[in-house]
Amino acid sequence: MLADVAYQGVPAAFGHEAALAVAGEAATTLACRRFEDVFRAVAEGAARLGVVPIENTLAGSVHETYDALARFQGDGVRIVGERVLRIAHALIAPRGVSLRDVRRVFSHPVALAQCEGLFRAHPEFEAVAAFNTAGAVQQIVAAGARDAAAIASVRAAHAYDGEVLLDGVEDHADNYTRFLAISLRDDGASSAPSAAPAAPAAPDEARWKTSILFTLEHRPGTLASILGSFADRGIDLVKIESRPLPGRPFEYAFYVDLLGRVGDAKMDAALLAAGPYARTLCVLGSYPAAKAPERATFV
Amino acid sequence: MLADVAYQGVPAAFGHEAALAVAGEAATTLACRRFEDVFRAVAEGAARLGVVPIENTLAGSVHETYDALARFQGDGVRIVGERVLRIAHALIAPRGVSLRDVRRVFSHPVALAQCEGLFRAHPEFEAVAAFNTAGAVQQIVAAGARDAAAIASVRAAHAYDGEVLLDGVEDHADNYTRFLAISLRDDGASSAPSAAPAAPAAPDEARWKTSILFTLEHRPGTLASILGSFADRGIDLVKIESRPLPGRPFEYAFYVDLLGRVGDAKMDAALLAAGPYARTLCVLGSYPAAKAPERATFV
Repeated sequence: MLADVAYQGVPAAFGHEAALAVAGEAATTLACRRFEDVFRAVAEGAARLGVVPIENTLAGSVHETYDALARFQGDGVRIVGERVLRIAHALIAPRGVSLRDVRRVFSHPVALAQCEGLFRAHPEFEAVAAFNTAGAVQQIVAAGARDAAAIASVRAAHAYDGEVLLDGVEDHADNYTRFLAISLRDDGASSAPSAAPAAPAAPDEARWKTSILFTLEHRPGTLASILGSFADRGIDLVKIESRPLPGRPFEYAFYVDLLGRVGDAKMDAALLAAGPYARTLCVLGSYPAAKAPERATFV
Repeated sequence: MLADVAYQGVPAAFGHEAALAVAGEAATTLACRRFEDVFRAVAEGAARLGVVPIENTLAGSVHETYDALARFQGDGVRIVGERVLRIAHALIAPRGVSLRDVRRVFSHPVALAQCEGLFRAHPEFEAVAAFNTAGAVQQIVAAGARDAAAIASVRAAHAYDGEVLLDGVEDHADNYTRFLAISLRDDGASSAPSAAPAAPAAPDEARWKTSILFTLEHRPGTLASILGSFADRGIDLVKIESRPLPGRPFEYAFYVDLLGRVGDAKMDAALLAAGPYARTLCVLGSYPAAKAPERATFV
């Protein structure tokens, strides 16, 4: 059966929350083990939409997602929307385990990176990578571990009957994760399914983003020239990310988010002007930009 | 006692090898637990030099190092050199453990990320984060684990009496790590201690690199303008990295590596021209660029 939306993790994970925010509370969901599996579910038609984290305001970019965007764009997977969720972490243990019993702390590496202060304050804690935040709670509770805790949302503690030992353990309250909605390219009129707000557009919602991926021609100054193609036309760049090209040591692919929409004269002219400086250039998606950071819907 | 060079990990780790390549085979070394501890050892005078990984050609940038460069530049820690090492990984187990016994695989997260193909081929493997590659071998051998293996160099297998189950498990043979040499700012004549080659400079060694860190003024086009300041003067940009600014959601610090030397007229003019577009701009170091990737010295 075709699911409405695929996400990484288990129910009550942040990805699950983002998936429901994109596809609606009544959406059918498909839980995947890895970010890559979400892309595959969309590419192979098992889910109409996918939701993947792309950056966190404390830990930074999610490299696996950037790499998967490049790998699956050839299959027609495109970005069709984005959502920003506030992330609050708690330290959660099986019932009966107290703070002084804890030696191992399980969570997704990005969540572990968001709580460096907790590990500095508790040098007896060993950080252990897990595939998912909520999944780590599920796992330690099921195993009945007496020396383990997990970093996840309070919602995950409730979902899997864990006990909250400490709340708000993230390094900074301004902790947001931006998620992308992905879908197979739809060359028809409605290119942004439920990710595009159906409600009348507020000024902020009227903004669009365009994400591009390019590699550079081997000439000095090509990156500045490409970025200049957009800056010269008043198109604002809101994010740039570089990733290594496997097999080409010290060469990079660049991911750039621009404010504007493909089909607008300014954007189309800028993409045309950028072309000669790029070895390859592709548009990963043109979609409504998220509003300013919103509170998580059901924390 | 003052050590010649601090590195992260344990003896026989890649960091140890890079430390000896920078400071000489006879150097006294200080092993640190985290990258941040290497910076602290240099800042507090416990070691004259530090060596830290900054990027890998498969896994990408080492974010902790970028963040520490920003944090410790205020203490006068500067980049004084760089080295590139080829990285080859093996799957290593305690003696008597066979490939089909392995369930948990320990290594540094960057090493785990370099071996994604191994985990795809062995879905029964669970990746577990460790603080160090060679340290993971030391740990599983000491514990006598019967279901565990570690990803590290063949050299680490020899150092800690582990058995090589599989060799060359990295995703791609073009696997290099670039290390930075750091030291306290030396405003005297010799700003690049042993990291600067004493031998007559070959054409490649004659090249210098300058690393800068900046944040942007809040105006569209400022990133393109800063990069243009260098491109317009024929100064080549070889790497750009962005990192989130904690407490300022969706704003970034930019790290840029340029070919050229502070004190040269072109570079100084470009830095001056870039100034008005930056909210903050600082030079993290100006140092001799590494030669093309070199084979590890004692693999």
